[in-house]
Formats: sequence, structure tokens, C-alpha cells
Amino acid sequence: MHTNKLVVIGAGHVGSYVLADAMKIGLFAEIGVIDILENVAFGEALDQAQATALPYMSNIKVTSGGYEQCVDADVIVVAAGPSVIPDPDDPKAEPDRTLLTTTNCQVIREVMAGIVRHTTEAIVILITNPLDTMVYIAENEFGYPRGRVFGTGTMLDSARLRKVVADACGIDPKSVTGFMMGEHGSTAFPVLSHVNVAGIPFADLGRHFEALGDIRDPETVKARVISAAYDVFNGKGWTNAGIAQSAVTMARAVLLDERSVFPACTTLRGQYGHDGDVALSMPCLLGREGIVKQLPVGLNSWEAEKLAESIAFIQSAMRDAGTGPDKAV
Amino acid sequence: MHTNKLVVIGAGHVGSYVLADAMKIGLFAEIGVIDILENVAFGEALDQAQATALPYMSNIKVTSGGYEQCVDADVIVVAAGPSVIPDPDDPKAEPDRTLLTTTNCQVIREVMAGIVRHTTEAIVILITNPLDTMVYIAENEFGYPRGRVFGTGTMLDSARLRKVVADACGIDPKSVTGFMMGEHGSTAFPVLSHVNVAGIPFADLGRHFEALGDIRDPETVKARVISAAYDVFNGKGWTNAGIAQSAVTMARAVLLDERSVFPACTTLRGQYGHDGDVALSMPCLLGREGIVKQLPVGLNSWEAEKLAESIAFIQSAMRDAGTGPDKAV
Amino acid sequence: MHTNKLVVIGAGHVGSYVLADAMKIGLFAEIGVIDILENVAFGEALDQAQATALPYMSNIKVTSGGYEQCVDADVIVVAAGPSVIPDPDDPKAEPDRTLLTTTNCQVIREVMAGIVRHTTEAIVILITNPLDTMVYIAENEFGYPRGRVFGTGTMLDSARLRKVVADACGIDPKSVTGFMMGEHGSTAFPVLSHVNVAGIPFADLGRHFEALGDIRDPETVKARVISAAYDVFNGKGWTNAGIAQSAVTMARAVLLDERSVFPACTTLRGQYGHDGDVALSMPCLLGREGIVKQLPVGLNSWEAEKLAESIAFIQSAMRDAGTGPDKAV
Amino acid sequence: MHTNKLVVIGAGHVGSYVLADAMKIGLFAEIGVIDILENVAFGEALDQAQATALPYMSNIKVTSGGYEQCVDADVIVVAAGPSVIPDPDDPKAEPDRTLLTTTNCQVIREVMAGIVRHTTEAIVILITNPLDTMVYIAENEFGYPRGRVFGTGTMLDSARLRKVVADACGIDPKSVTGFMMGEHGSTAFPVLSHVNVAGIPFADLGRHFEALGDIRDPETVKARVISAAYDVFNGKGWTNAGIAQSAVTMARAVLLDERSVFPACTTLRGQYGHDGDVALSMPCLLGREGIVKQLPVGLNSWEAEKLAESIAFIQSAMRDAGTGPDKAV
Repeated sequence: MHTNKLVVIGAGHVGSYVLADAMKIGLFAEIGVIDILENVAFGEALDQAQATALPYMSNIKVTSGGYEQCVDADVIVVAAGPSVIPDPDDPKAEPDRTLLTTTNCQVIREVMAGIVRHTTEAIVILITNPLDTMVYIAENEFGYPRGRVFGTGTMLDSARLRKVVADACGIDPKSVTGFMMGEHGSTAFPVLSHVNVAGIPFADLGRHFEALGDIRDPETVKARVISAAYDVFNGKGWTNAGIAQSAVTMARAVLLDERSVFPACTTLRGQYGHDGDVALSMPCLLGREGIVKQLPVGLNSWEAEKLAESIAFIQSAMRDAGTGPDKAV
Repeated sequence: MHTNKLVVIGAGHVGSYVLADAMKIGLFAEIGVIDILENVAFGEALDQAQATALPYMSNIKVTSGGYEQCVDADVIVVAAGPSVIPDPDDPKAEPDRTLLTTTNCQVIREVMAGIVRHTTEAIVILITNPLDTMVYIAENEFGYPRGRVFGTGTMLDSARLRKVVADACGIDPKSVTGFMMGEHGSTAFPVLSHVNVAGIPFADLGRHFEALGDIRDPETVKARVISAAYDVFNGKGWTNAGIAQSAVTMARAVLLDERSVFPACTTLRGQYGHDGDVALSMPCLLGREGIVKQLPVGLNSWEAEKLAESIAFIQSAMRDAGTGPDKAV
Repeated sequence: MHTNKLVVIGAGHVGSYVLADAMKIGLFAEIGVIDILENVAFGEALDQAQATALPYMSNIKVTSGGYEQCVDADVIVVAAGPSVIPDPDDPKAEPDRTLLTTTNCQVIREVMAGIVRHTTEAIVILITNPLDTMVYIAENEFGYPRGRVFGTGTMLDSARLRKVVADACGIDPKSVTGFMMGEHGSTAFPVLSHVNVAGIPFADLGRHFEALGDIRDPETVKARVISAAYDVFNGKGWTNAGIAQSAVTMARAVLLDERSVFPACTTLRGQYGHDGDVALSMPCLLGREGIVKQLPVGLNSWEAEKLAESIAFIQSAMRDAGTGPDKAV
Repeated sequence: MHTNKLVVIGAGHVGSYVLADAMKIGLFAEIGVIDILENVAFGEALDQAQATALPYMSNIKVTSGGYEQCVDADVIVVAAGPSVIPDPDDPKAEPDRTLLTTTNCQVIREVMAGIVRHTTEAIVILITNPLDTMVYIAENEFGYPRGRVFGTGTMLDSARLRKVVADACGIDPKSVTGFMMGEHGSTAFPVLSHVNVAGIPFADLGRHFEALGDIRDPETVKARVISAAYDVFNGKGWTNAGIAQSAVTMARAVLLDERSVFPACTTLRGQYGHDGDVALSMPCLLGREGIVKQLPVGLNSWEAEKLAESIAFIQSAMRDAGTGPDKAV
């Protein structure tokens, strides 16, 4: 008889938070943890398992082990791989993104190989960076069923956008509608043509909220959202709370078949003039089968320009990773 | 030392669901129940109190009694009064709304008199129908501090609108932004100029969702939403689940000071050319002080016309209830 | 691909609360409602479906219809049948329990026939009274797989017991361990030999809690718990909040495979000298397969005597219902 | 008007999890974070604040700053100070507990000094180790109102005990009643005389659960629980999930005034022959005023012996910290 099962691959800063958040939503009967450091996976699973003996907690079976845990998983969240690779000689220097790409494309290929040995049924949600390239590899190099593997994409970037707008207006970010598109990273851009508060267009918010101030032009908003990520990173050294919550929210939409519209990362299939040559984030419907529909929203000229820049950036990283349409199966 | 307290006035179909929902959100340490049938209030409180001895439940203090329970309440939800008054000779006939108005304006005046004897600090959320008239009375005849009394308004009508749109698109209603304005009742109207899915305007939804079908014009959408209410009413004989959840969601926004934008019912103060002569629903910011701001969104010509019709209807009921600007204190 | 599904049969006072509670626990992707009054089932389902368009709510698919909804159900909760049958000539008189038995044994036989036409996989949780007789019929007359059908039993009676003890001590009822055994009804009895607060035996509670007062002997405790049920009943006219929460808590234990120890109602299979001739409540392990183990706790002489009385009472009702070992398949 | 506020002091492995857990329970309108590394506090607060823009999340105000944030706090959780101090020359060696004591007694004195500059109203829950000594200092050296400062104590050790017993029986740990007493650390001991499953004494569990196997004697159980902590520590390098959940569960019991019985750490006031000379964990009632009552349960001879050993151990650490009755104000 079926019970809902999640597997978390990678138990570092991000994966441990995915695990922690997943313990609290009442949806999973079983959670498996996988990490190349088996003792870390074991420790994380045991710590959470002990917490199930506290009041209000569900008796979730939390285990650690290898990829065999994926065989009956409903959802797999992949947070494996380093998040940044600092220069050992100059830890303060800008991290080397190319090195991260070449390292993590190896990681993702190993992870996907591990998964497909045991299942092609599970919905796989990727977090590992550089995300868009990782999604392209996972989605195209392993013959995994269409829609069943995707990335958290600009889910968190979009939350940051809504938070920036909400703070400027002094309102609940849940009352802001809006999303970022493109790369999960510095070339992501706000689709201000679609941002609104209770249907009031972004351009008109100033009439209702004086404090909106200087965040009226798209470049400023873009910069503010990107810096919101760096502020967290520079503050605590990594970001995990928001991205973990993003992944778990997507996992719930999948398992409850909510058909929620979220900005997930997936390979384009004809949208915006691209077919199978890039993966990026755009609004998608998420249900029990994973991504069940993409919504290619109309873009204004600034947005279209930013999309082109973002695509160019992602394709450059894809080349660093040795992936692309010719590697797709 | 402070603990969060809710008082529910009226323990009928709706009030009992408000109580039940409030037991589950983890926010209240204490809930008081008041009903003219003291034994019913006692029974409802005791039934819920016994449920606190089950796993996962918080040990909430649930009591019944008189208005003295309001003295330290943070939020008071008023669901008192009959919801419809059927013709005893012809129970199937259209309910007599005028009779309901004259009955419930008495009820609300008694309830507000009971509340102000003990507090003017609590945020009062009204559900009793005809809602807009009841809110006008409560807000204007008792000198209750501005913003601290309001109605659930078109919170539920708006949920129905989003559900209608979501079902037509085959998506999660949480992914639909939009609201109804005007009366809570048959003259409520959808503000389609502000309805969107992830920022995609209502008018463009057909490009993405073929099934949208016949709900493209505002009159059809309005009729669909109004009939959604009657479908529940005709099915089970009353509506309570949705309206109770609406009230509790508003109570949470208040107690957490969320500053959420919700379509609450409140007296107009200069918006849409009305000042103190009508109460109706429009998007409002809800925080710890109650309604902290109204957002008079722009309306197209159909919407402006419907607003005028709705205002005329509400003012007619206000006259039946013997209230209006001349009764305001 | 699997999504968790609940079916609620009977949408009256109790079933509607089961539905309402089940909407809030984040576990079910789909809930089906069945009632002989199809419009009531339709209205309840629609009311709850509309509430899913409010913030914080999951997009649960809520439907109404016939028994075909059971085909892919994980759990079925049965709250069908009248809860009491008052004397039409003297509504205040003690309800006729025999009449209730003969009416509801018909109801349960129809319900079980409806279920088994579509599934023998679902875990069936009965609430309909007189519960123990209904469980006996459902468990023994239809060849339903062992353990997969059981009753809420003394789950609520036990909550009332813990609440009575907790109130006497002035503590959280979650800090009280203890249960009622036997019939779900007036012959249920507290197993005081097993009641404790953090392991402090009931008999020693007076050392720590002066206010324990007069609830020191088992007859008084029994009377207090039984009257706690009647207090609710006499107050509001029915009891539903506590019993609905009990059923949903059991449904969660099943779907999460929690293996919780709850006082469920099931047919004895050798415990206490009975084998297949009576169904009653005792501590049981609840997991994904339903009741996976019974725990025949040791009883003192008063408890053993009360058990015998309770069994005699249940067997008398079983005879009224025309069921017993000779009807078992 | 009041809104519930939590302050978390110390944003390391443990404090960051306290923050994360507190974001999810729907109880707090505001959470402040304090850390000697201001940028870490800032980053943690911002990361969580951004997550509030995701669906299902409450709009909690999350801030960072100094002790002035405590002025209107309802609850303060203290997770400041290093958790272990490894030998720099031999990181694998047993950590130096004396060094930890002398370091963290400084930390706690600074923290308490910071708190009392702004409030003596907040309920202060300590996590910092060695916990019992830290609690003694906080409770006795600053004149903080009796009951309003206490430690998580053996809350987590007790969860581990229940998990060990539950796993041996193959049941939900929520179905196990029981607790550890004494030091939060290696001299904590299981009070097996009070451990039970649905009232079945620990000594009789073997009759119902064959697999109980070798955990029948107290020394084995004690060793198993202590090693459960080290298993987590040796696996992931620290423990945080279980202890954070413990602290948040206690915070909830306080703010909802649940009067739950939890094994909290507090100074003895006449219990077990000690008055003001040691702080340790025993079952306590937790309500809105903090610890409102201690429950000195009866101990058998093994337990009494272990209590004496534990007290001796704690008092030795108290001496290292330079605290004791002569320092109490």
C-alpha cells in the first residue's frame, strides 16, 4: 500500500533544510537521505528521527542510505554538490563559476545515473547550481520522462522580487503577484509587465503606495532582487532557508497535484523561439506528473532583451558543462 | 502576560465552523463562545475543548459565557443572527431579505452594545448578513475606533471567483489573483480588469487555456460566481465552510499584523465619490489595527456601473435598517 | 501516479466535520463525499472546494458522487446513518437505542456493500453508532481483509477521560496518558490502572495536584467521562467536533503509517477470552494496513468486571442487529 | 496592540534551526535575531524573511539587531556560545568540557546582562551547554523573576528515550510516555519506573513486543540514549534539529499557556533534598509564566543513585563556572 516518500540527495546546508522543512508539512510518511558523506546523511536522518518523539510531530520514517532508497520515492530533491568553490588562495575573491559548473555537472550526472538505476517514476526537483545547466543535463541526457525532472528555477528569485515590492508598499508579500524569469542567478530579470498587487499593475502602485520610491524602473528592481540574494550570502555565507522552502513548496504542489503556477526551470520546447537548446525559468503548471504545462507569457522589449541575455549566459555555461542539443537523448 | 484570545459571537452553522477552524491554526491560546442559546455555546465550547486531548492539538482554553469574555479579546468574530428567514407558509419561496435586514440590524445593535460595554480594543470581524448594512451600523453607530470593525465582505465571493477562473483554466486557485467588489451578495461584481494568472490578464487567458470557454464576458463570470454561492446553499441548506475560513484568515492577518490585501467590507471615506454613506467591499490592507488602508482600484465602465448598482442596493437595505449618515456618531 | 484520497460517507453533522478537518491537515490531494442526499454531498463538497481559493489552503480536489469514488480511496470514513432517533411523540424522552441499532445496521450493510463493490484495499474507519455493533457487522459479514476496517471506538471517550484528569490537575491533556475501554457509549470504562501523568500513576496524582478532589475512584471518573459526552449532546444537540477530529487523527496515523497506539474498535481474536463474538475498543496499533496489532492490557478486578458488563451490553445490541459469529464470513 | 514576538540569541547551527522552526508554527508575528556576528544574524533573518513570500507562509516580520529587540519579546531562546571547543592540536580528541564551561559561562552572563537591560517580562529558554550550569547562572545571578528562565533540559534526551523504546516496540514514539532526568548530558538517566506505552509499564512491554530485546535494564537504556546523541554528533558534527524543535515546542507551550508537563531544567527548590544549590531537569509544568510547577516524581533506588551522580557532576561544572548559592541574588 502506498505511502508518500521523499528522497533528499545532498545533506549540506540546503539539503538539510529541505529535510527539516519536509518534516513539518504533514505530507510524507517516509524521507530518505543520501550524501556522499554517509555519516552526514546518517546524522541528519537520525537527528530528525529523534525529533519525531516530540509533541505535534508526525512519526515520519527517516532513513539514510544509497540510491536504492529512490525505488519507491514519489519526489526526489537534489541539493548535491558544492554551492560555491572559493579560490583557496583568496577566499574573498569572486567565486569561480566555471569551476563550479565543471564540478557540478559531474555531480549531477552521477546523481541522475544513480536515480535512473532505480526509478523513472519519481518527480525530480533540482536545486544544484548553476541550476539551468544542471536541469538541462538531467532533463536531456538520461531519457527521463518529459516533465518529471525540473529545477526550483526562479522560485526563490521570484519570492525575493515579491518581498522587495511588498516591503516598498508595506504589505504582505503574499498579496504581490509576480515572478522573475531566465537564469537562476545574476541574469534573472523581473517581468514587471506582469507584477501586480491585487491586480493593480506595478506601474500604478505609486498611486497607492507613496513609499514605492526608487524601485520604479526595471533595472533598479532587477538589481535590488539580485542584491537581496547576495545580502543573504554575504551575511551568513550561504543561502538555504528560502531555497529549501521553495523546493518543498514545489514538492507539495506535485504530491497534492495542485497544478500551481510556479516559475520552474525546464528546457524550452518551442517557447520564445528556442527548442531544446536551453533550460530556463518561466511560469509552469506543476502537478502530479511534474511540469504539466509551460506558460510563455508575453514580454515587453526590455524583458525580451533580458531574456536573450540570460539565454546567452546559460548557453555559455552549458558549453562549459559539455552539454547541449547534441548530447540530448 | 498576554495570550492571544478570540471570541466568537453566534454559534450556529457559521460560528461553529469559525470556532472549529480557529482551533487548528495554532494562534489562539483562548477562545470564548457566546450565543443567545447559552447551552449551544456551552456544548460547542465543550466539544472543541474535549478535542484538545487528541494528538497534534494545542491545549486551547475554550469557554462559553457572556460578553464579559470580550474584555481581553484580541479579535471578535460576529456570526450572530439568522442567515435566512424563510416564509413559514412557503419555505421554498425566495427568502424575504427585508425581514432579514430588520431582524439582524437588531441583532447587530445588541451585539455591538454588548461588545462596547467591555472593549473598544478588539478587532471586530462581522459575518452577519446582510453584511454591508450590518457593517455600516457597527462601524458608525457605536463610536468604535476607526478600522477596528469591518466585515468579511467579498472575501468569500472573491474565493469563488478565483475558483471559477481556476477551474476553467485547470489550475490551482492560489495561482489566480482577483477579487469581487461591492455588496456581499447578488450585486457583487468581478473586477475582471484586475483578474490575472501570474500576471497574465484575464482577457489573455484564452491564449494559454483553451477550456476557458464561455466565461469570457463579465456578466457571465458574475452570474457564475453568484450561482456558485446558491449552488452551495441549495445543496446543503446553508454555507459555512468557506465563510468561516475567510473570517479566520482575516483574523490571522490581524493577529500576525500581516498587512494582507483582502476585499473587506468597510464604510467608504471619500473613495468612489462616497463619504460615510455606504459600506461595501474593496481591497483593503489588514493589520494589527484592523483595516489600515483602503485601495480604491481603478474601474472600467462596466465595473463602475456595477458599483453604482451595488451601492444603490446596499443603501436601500440601509434604509430598511434605519441607518445612514444621520445615525453615525 | 498515486495521490492520497479520502472518501467520507455520510455528510451530516459528523461527516461534514470530518471533511472540514481533513481539508486542513495537508495530507489529502483528493476527498470524495457520499450521502444519500446527493445535494447535501454536493453542497458540502462545493463549499469546501471554494475555500481552497483562500490563502494558506491546499488545492484539494473535493468531489461528490456515488460509491465509485471509493475505487482509488486510501481511507474511507463512514459517518452515515442517524445519530439518534427521537420519539416523535416525546422528543425529550431517552432515545430508543434499539431502534437506532436496527436502523443503522441496515445503513452499514448498505454502505459496506457499496464499498466492496469498488475496493477492498481502502482502510475503512467507522463512526456510525451503535459503533461496536456496526464494526462487528462491517468487519465480519463482508469478508473485508482483516484489520482494514475498524471503528473510532473509545478514541473520543479517551480524550474526554484525559481532559477530565487534565482539568482536575490543571495541566495540558496531552500530558495525560490513558484510555477508556469497552463499548463506545455508556458502558465504556476508564482503565485507571494505566492512566498516568508523565508516568505518575493515577493513584498518586493527588500528591502533586491537590485539586484532584473527588475524581479518585473509578466509578466517579467513569460517570464524569460519560456525562462529558451528554453535556455536549444536551448543549448543542449532537457531538461532532471531537469525534471528527478522532477519525481524522486515525486516518493520518494510517496514511503516514505511524503505528500509533489508539483505542480503536475491532473484533476480539482471543483477547480477554473472546474470539470473534464481540467487537469493542482496546489499545491497538494503527498503521498503513489498518489495525496491525491489538494490545490486551492487564486489567484489575473492577476493570475486568466493567469489561464483562460492556461486552454483555454490546452483544445484546449485536443480537438486535441480527449479527454474531454465525453471520461471519 | 500586542503581537507575539520571539527573539533568538545565537544564530549558529542551533539558533538558525530554532528560527527556521519558529517560522512554521503560525504563532509569531515577529522574530528578532541576535548574534555576535551581526552579519550572520542579518543573513539568517533576511533568508527567512524572503521565504515569507512563498505560498503557505505567514508574513512574519524577521529582523536582526541588538538586545533592544528584547524589549517587547514574549519569549527569548538563547542558543549562544560554542557547542564544543575542540583541541586545535587534536580535533578528534574528546572535547574539553571544562574549557566549554568557562567559555560559555561568560557568554551566558553577557547574554543575560543584555536581556535584563531591556526586559524581565520575557520567558527565557536556554539551550547553551553545559546547560544545567548555564541555567543556574541565568536563574540565580540576575534576579530574573522566578520561573521565567529555564533550560530545554532533558526535553531532547527524553525524546531520544521515547524513540529508543518506540523503535524497540515498532510503534509511534508519540505513544510512549517517559522522560530522562538529571543533567542534560552524559549523566542524564531514564526514569524507567515512569516509562510506559499507553500505561503499560516499561517492565511489562516485553509481553506485548517481542523485539524489545536487550533494552530491558536501565543501564542499557541509559547507554542507548546517550549514544543516540553521539551518533548524531559523530555523524553530522553537531546536533540541532531535535534540540531546536524542543525549544520551539516549549516556546509554544508558554505562549499558548498550555501547562504541558515537560522535563525542563531549573534550579531545585526543596525537591530531592536540594534547595538552590543545583539546577537540573525534572518534569515541570510550562505555562505563560514559564515554569509554574515542578513535579518531583518518586524514584527507585537505581534512579536515586543516578540522580546523586548527576547532581555531583553538575555541581562540579558549577564550580568551574564560579557559580553556586553564594553567587545567587
